[in-house]
Amino acid sequence: MELYAGKINKLIEELSALPGIGVKSAGRLAFYLINEPEEHVKRLADAMLDAKRNIRYCKECFTLTDQELCPICSSQKRDHKTIMVVETTRDLAAYEKTGKYEGVYHVLHGAISPLLGIGPGDIRLKELMIRLRGEVDEVIIATNSSLEGETTAMYISKLIKPTGIRCSRIASGVPVGGDLENIDEVTLLRALEGRTPL
Amino acid sequence: MELYAGKINKLIEELSALPGIGVKSAGRLAFYLINEPEEHVKRLADAMLDAKRNIRYCKECFTLTDQELCPICSSQKRDHKTIMVVETTRDLAAYEKTGKYEGVYHVLHGAISPLLGIGPGDIRLKELMIRLRGEVDEVIIATNSSLEGETTAMYISKLIKPTGIRCSRIASGVPVGGDLENIDEVTLLRALEGRTPL
Repeated sequence: MELYAGKINKLIEELSALPGIGVKSAGRLAFYLINEPEEHVKRLADAMLDAKRNIRYCKECFTLTDQELCPICSSQKRDHKTIMVVETTRDLAAYEKTGKYEGVYHVLHGAISPLLGIGPGDIRLKELMIRLRGEVDEVIIATNSSLEGETTAMYISKLIKPTGIRCSRIASGVPVGGDLENIDEVTLLRALEGRTPL
Repeated sequence: MELYAGKINKLIEELSALPGIGVKSAGRLAFYLINEPEEHVKRLADAMLDAKRNIRYCKECFTLTDQELCPICSSQKRDHKTIMVVETTRDLAAYEKTGKYEGVYHVLHGAISPLLGIGPGDIRLKELMIRLRGEVDEVIIATNSSLEGETTAMYISKLIKPTGIRCSRIASGVPVGGDLENIDEVTLLRALEGRTPL
């Protein structure tokens, strides 16, 4: 006999498929949701579907956004000649939180990883090279300081060299092996200030 | 400027309102969902709404179910003259997992707590007393061994005394202050076997 009613089991199963949520947390969440007012559950369900259905890539920097151009790319206040290359939208958000970076971004959506079979063609690198045909002063490579991030940084710097565009890497203030999104803002800023030419 | 597109922020906000999920986990979940196929997100959203909309109380034992009568109350194989009183549907599930209890349940949906202003009228106690007018051999009180659970157990035993129905309390194999749902099955069984008359 099943422990709970079918619909509760189904919900627990779906919730426990989420990253970082085990069966026990899923059970807790399921009963929490069942006891919440229906409009609250509806709001959460709608937010999930709405985000999933209406989020697309910014046609300039490829971050996730709900407009054709993201707020950063469409802002007149930003320096569009400085492009920071990051792996994910969440890394972009980590630098935005510092409030001090005034350039724009380019989101790769991944990093080169021969081990995982992710090559240069699997991330938004071609799109970066196309952007560099425009007026660009500097490319700041802010991929993670992991093996994949470093590999990607080296690869990009070699691609950019022939174009004559200045290319830098954020300083090693970022702890080796760490993910950008888990690092405090002061360290992120120090890494930006201490960037070195590649 | 907002860090993410409005719809992503909205989703993160909704997710971080869930118990045990902070802003960082909510961000991780949000980007996970945005990158999943739409049918997966739809399945999760539907499971949430479906559970919320179609779950009701079993008219006999008041556990959460999607039928008029829960599978346990409608089973011919169970001993309907033995009623185990638990605080929540999840405590019921904890005893069901042992696979050894053959009676039925009564779910109070809470415990008496003068501190929180929860009195006997706020839990499903009246409904238990109505059930006891039928043919019942024994009531096993399996509320948590917390202050509230013990208070509730004492209160119920005093209510039952005049009816002449046998009334027992699960043994103190359950660690003091612990929640039933976090306890291993062997301990739960030992507590059941060692129950003492009240």
